Amino acid sequence: MTDSPITFDPAVIWERVEALAQFGKYGDTGVARPVYSPEWQAAQNEITRWAESLGLEVRSDAVGNVWAKLPGSEGGKSIASGSHIDSQLPGGRFDGVLGVISAITALGALKERYGTPKRTLEAVSLCEEESSRFPTTEFWGSRAITGRIKPGDTENVISYGGEPIGEVMRSIGLDPSKTDDAIRNDIGAWVELHIEQGPLLEADGLPLGVVTAITGLRHYTVKVTGNSNHAGAFPMDLRRDPMAAAAEMISNVVGRAAEWGRPAVTTVGRIHVEPNFPAIVPETVEFMIDARHPDPEARLRLYAEHEAALREIAARRNVEIEIENIKGHEPYICDPKLVETFDRAAQRVGAPYRQLTSGAVHDAQRMGAIAPAVMLFVRSKDGRSHTPAEYSSPEDIAIGVATLTEGLRALAYE
Amino acid sequence: MTDSPITFDPAVIWERVEALAQFGKYGDTGVARPVYSPEWQAAQNEITRWAESLGLEVRSDAVGNVWAKLPGSEGGKSIASGSHIDSQLPGGRFDGVLGVISAITALGALKERYGTPKRTLEAVSLCEEESSRFPTTEFWGSRAITGRIKPGDTENVISYGGEPIGEVMRSIGLDPSKTDDAIRNDIGAWVELHIEQGPLLEADGLPLGVVTAITGLRHYTVKVTGNSNHAGAFPMDLRRDPMAAAAEMISNVVGRAAEWGRPAVTTVGRIHVEPNFPAIVPETVEFMIDARHPDPEARLRLYAEHEAALREIAARRNVEIEIENIKGHEPYICDPKLVETFDRAAQRVGAPYRQLTSGAVHDAQRMGAIAPAVMLFVRSKDGRSHTPAEYSSPEDIAIGVATLTEGLRALAYE
Repeated sequence: MTDSPITFDPAVIWERVEALAQFGKYGDTGVARPVYSPEWQAAQNEITRWAESLGLEVRSDAVGNVWAKLPGSEGGKSIASGSHIDSQLPGGRFDGVLGVISAITALGALKERYGTPKRTLEAVSLCEEESSRFPTTEFWGSRAITGRIKPGDTENVISYGGEPIGEVMRSIGLDPSKTDDAIRNDIGAWVELHIEQGPLLEADGLPLGVVTAITGLRHYTVKVTGNSNHAGAFPMDLRRDPMAAAAEMISNVVGRAAEWGRPAVTTVGRIHVEPNFPAIVPETVEFMIDARHPDPEARLRLYAEHEAALREIAARRNVEIEIENIKGHEPYICDPKLVETFDRAAQRVGAPYRQLTSGAVHDAQRMGAIAPAVMLFVRSKDGRSHTPAEYSSPEDIAIGVATLTEGLRALAYE
Repeated sequence: MTDSPITFDPAVIWERVEALAQFGKYGDTGVARPVYSPEWQAAQNEITRWAESLGLEVRSDAVGNVWAKLPGSEGGKSIASGSHIDSQLPGGRFDGVLGVISAITALGALKERYGTPKRTLEAVSLCEEESSRFPTTEFWGSRAITGRIKPGDTENVISYGGEPIGEVMRSIGLDPSKTDDAIRNDIGAWVELHIEQGPLLEADGLPLGVVTAITGLRHYTVKVTGNSNHAGAFPMDLRRDPMAAAAEMISNVVGRAAEWGRPAVTTVGRIHVEPNFPAIVPETVEFMIDARHPDPEARLRLYAEHEAALREIAARRNVEIEIENIKGHEPYICDPKLVETFDRAAQRVGAPYRQLTSGAVHDAQRMGAIAPAVMLFVRSKDGRSHTPAEYSSPEDIAIGVATLTEGLRALAYE
């Protein structure tokens, strides 16, 4: 193999980004495209038409994932690439969908230049990852593929509007009793291109990242209960003030992750106070901690330090504390051989790149349960994501697609 | 004057507490009686009937304050006592109304034993103090009496349900254009008995307090703005996290008041986060500070220290800060001669008592603008108030009423 790698015209891929951003367009640069909505259906239909026009075999599975296949001469397991088509409400034009565009573009280009591969290539537009319509989908598309949807889940996953996901599926012609039909036992590798959603590549002046690990995450609620008292008549020394305790706890856990340094992150994004009146010492302050680390051992140590600090502060301040874990993802260490393959691909393409870990969770984490997986990151402007302000340049995207294409070539044609 | 002071049967006064608690009864021990509601009207009517039955001259003024008068032989300015009849939603059976019951009981007893006083005595059931129906009334009853209602206020004070107070007044037969008719320029002294709403008397094992100063208060909102970012993909060292900043600010201001010690108090009871999602570093965190001190100079120093700390933290953490003062009350130093009068009254009654400052704001603060004023506090159980759990014992209440009566006797008959 001495051919020079396939390259792409940034303007052509950008047209595809713009075309898909029309489905659920929100303002000038935003997208609001919840799973199973009319705009989501229109987007999957557009992807189907486009992939068919490139000569790929396209089908929709039991949960609405759209698969585009380039069959290999040797059969066996597929090398699959893709990401999700749904968005935050509103999100941007890149999160998820860029991985779909990249995978289909790659397969089309490989077919055009090299014809039939040895190993089967598949591109997939996953139905859902964002939890923006149903809070507990937990990556509905890759969850279905990896057999993690249990009987009853289609009745128990309820939208913010109160609809069970099974009912919504039925309304667009999907049979919620058939989700197991989406299970795949024949995926041999998963490669997902995604925007970084963080500022690290931009800080280093690099368009591309090869992801070596995806963070583990825990969400826990901390409920602090004290005594609600009159803000004037009750002296400080006799108070059991849950707000003062919560403030110290938040400072502690956020400060601790800052002290640990990269890649540890801890965020308190949500807080709920009762009764939330200006002149009353609160009765309860409940807040949610999001804490992440890509190293399995360090992650658990971070959680242990957080919990010890929370309990120490509660005891010292004489308030009650309840800690409840409500959501978790194990870290995923990317497959070293795939990391090496895409390192080499970046080098062959001439892409300035670095290895990095992902602080966001991704479909690749679920897919990693059934196949070796890796991710590519494309530089994000200002690290913004989950907002219409999300941006990656056409030039950076073209470098990402070229690297994805070169890596898939190495996996499927060599 | 060598007569022994008038004493009261606790059971008789308790009956009166129970009787008035029927108007707006909430659960077993609560009261929900917003100003100008049917239950409020019924309570004012009951007070009218009762005061008339004691031989007092009763009238209702332009905002619905009910005045009961025992005219003095010498004329001149009145010695007035009372408090408010409205409640929190729900509040307890004592806050406000106990001062009304005590004043009328005192006037009835004084008339019975001593007949016509030299100086005119008046008891008043003020229409409103709690801001529980209209957030910006600012003590509607004493505000009217002291001439602090401006033209237009009756259209601009809007209930939580959206009704202008003027419209509500009209609906029960009060003319909102006549609020100036409630102004009094002939009050010579104001004495207000109230429950403590704090734990200080209980901690000292004392049924009674003579109030030497009423706290000054400021409510300010602090709005902290940073950058909303992905909770995973954005490293700690690059964040501008308004939640981390707000947590440090809250710890600082609450901790500072705790360090200052009594009587300084600082409370953060209300917080509002945008967007308030678990996995997003917030864009803004807005919280409200309630900070109080009864000493005018120390109060301003406390606010200056708070503000300096808030701005230092904002600057160090590179977040934007907006501080807005939304409400303030000047401290009121009680009239030293009246304090002395009621010290002596407590001693003559044999009431175990101490002097203390009030951390709550009261009608006495407004009345103090037109007449020398003082307050008596009756011990609260567990310092609870603004809740149906509010409680003061019949025995403590009887001691309070006896002290009030003895002090009013000294002022009006000697």
